[in-house]
Amino acid sequence: MDIAIPLFDRFTALDAVGPYEVLSRLPGHRITFVADRPGPKTTDNGMLTIVAEKALADLPRPEIFVVPGGIGTRAMMRDQPLIDWVRGAHETSRYSCSVCTGSLVLGAAGLLDGLEATTHWASMELLGSAGATPVSRRVVEQGKVITAAGVSSGIDMALTLAARIAGDAVAQAIQLGIEYDPQPPFDSGSLDKAPREAIDLCRRVERAVDEGEPVRV
Amino acid sequence: MDIAIPLFDRFTALDAVGPYEVLSRLPGHRITFVADRPGPKTTDNGMLTIVAEKALADLPRPEIFVVPGGIGTRAMMRDQPLIDWVRGAHETSRYSCSVCTGSLVLGAAGLLDGLEATTHWASMELLGSAGATPVSRRVVEQGKVITAAGVSSGIDMALTLAARIAGDAVAQAIQLGIEYDPQPPFDSGSLDKAPREAIDLCRRVERAVDEGEPVRV
Repeated sequence: MDIAIPLFDRFTALDAVGPYEVLSRLPGHRITFVADRPGPKTTDNGMLTIVAEKALADLPRPEIFVVPGGIGTRAMMRDQPLIDWVRGAHETSRYSCSVCTGSLVLGAAGLLDGLEATTHWASMELLGSAGATPVSRRVVEQGKVITAAGVSSGIDMALTLAARIAGDAVAQAIQLGIEYDPQPPFDSGSLDKAPREAIDLCRRVERAVDEGEPVRV
Repeated sequence: MDIAIPLFDRFTALDAVGPYEVLSRLPGHRITFVADRPGPKTTDNGMLTIVAEKALADLPRPEIFVVPGGIGTRAMMRDQPLIDWVRGAHETSRYSCSVCTGSLVLGAAGLLDGLEATTHWASMELLGSAGATPVSRRVVEQGKVITAAGVSSGIDMALTLAARIAGDAVAQAIQLGIEYDPQPPFDSGSLDKAPREAIDLCRRVERAVDEGEPVRV
C-alpha cells in the first residue's frame, strides 16, 4: 500500500515528518515523498531540505496521501499540477489527509466542499474561503477526508489514521515506539491556553510570514 | 548563534525534525544539518532523505548541538570523526543535547560520565554501559547537557531549551506557533501506560531492529 506525501517549496517540516514517522511504522505500507519532479524541496525557513523520491506523475493513485502545510501552500492553491494530482488521487484514495494549511490545498482542489475541516489556528478564515466549514478541533474526520490542525497535530492525526487502517493495538504500539507521551514544559499550545504575551508574539510572526518574511518568533 | 544537528545513515527523522521545528523559530539562531560530508542522509527505514548542508568540519564549534537517535547510532558510537566532533563541540558549547539513542553517542564521547541521562525506553541498559546513570524521565537536564527520551520527546526537550535560551514567553509562542497541544487518540506512549498487546508488538519490532531488519511494527 502506497502512502504519498507531496512536498513543495516552503513546506513546514514537522507537518510532513510527524505523519511520516507514525505511518512509516505501519506494516505493509510504503511512504514516498513526491513533488513536481524528483529532487530536493526546502522548508519555509530555508534551513531543511528533504528529497522527493518521485514525481507526482509517478504515483498518481496512492491509497493514502497527506498534504503538509507551510507558507508555500498559498502558491500551491493555484498550482494546477498539484491540484490536479490531489483531485485525481482523491478519486480512488482510501484516505485523503492534510496537516495544518495543507487543508487549503485540499480545499482549492474542491475536496472540502460542504465538509467540516481544520487547519492552523491562524488560517481558519482562509480555510472558510476555500470551501470548508472550519472547525477548531485537532483532528477532523469526514469520511475518508481527515484534516489536522497546526504543525504538530499531524502526529495525532496519523495515530488516528493508523488505528483506522491497522487497529488500535498497532497504533498503540507505534505510539509506544515513538514514545509519544507528551510532557510539554508549558500549556501554551492553543489560543485558549496560551498566555497573552505568547499570543501577541506569535501573531507578530504570523503577520511577518504573510508578508513574506522568514518564519521567526 | 549556530545550532548544529548532525545526521548519519539510519537516523530517525522525528528525532531531528522535532527539535529543528522548535529551535528554528528562535530569534537570532540558525540551524544547520551537518554530516561527515555535505549531502543526503537517509533514515532508519530508508524512506526519507534529508540533505546535510555542511560537513562536521565546517561547523566545529556550534553554540548548541542536538544529536538525534536511530539504529544508526550503534555504528556512530564507534565513528571517530563524529565522536571527535561531539567532544570538540562540547568543549565550548552552550548546550549539548540528544534525542532518543543520540545519548549513546554523547556517552561514547564521554560526555555523560557520572551524569544522569535518558534515551529510548528500549535502550536504557545500553545507555548504562555507555557511562551514564540512566533515568526514566522525558527530559533530563544536567547543567548544559540535556538528553531526551524516545523520538517524539525531542519536541518537549527543545521547548525546554528554547525557554532557557530566550525565556518562557518565546518558548510559549513557539509552542502556540506549532500548535503543540497534544491530544493523542490513545494513552500508550510509555511502558507504564501502554496495553500489554501494544508492548509485545512493539518489543517484537525493537528486536527486529537490533537484528538489522527494517523498522516496522
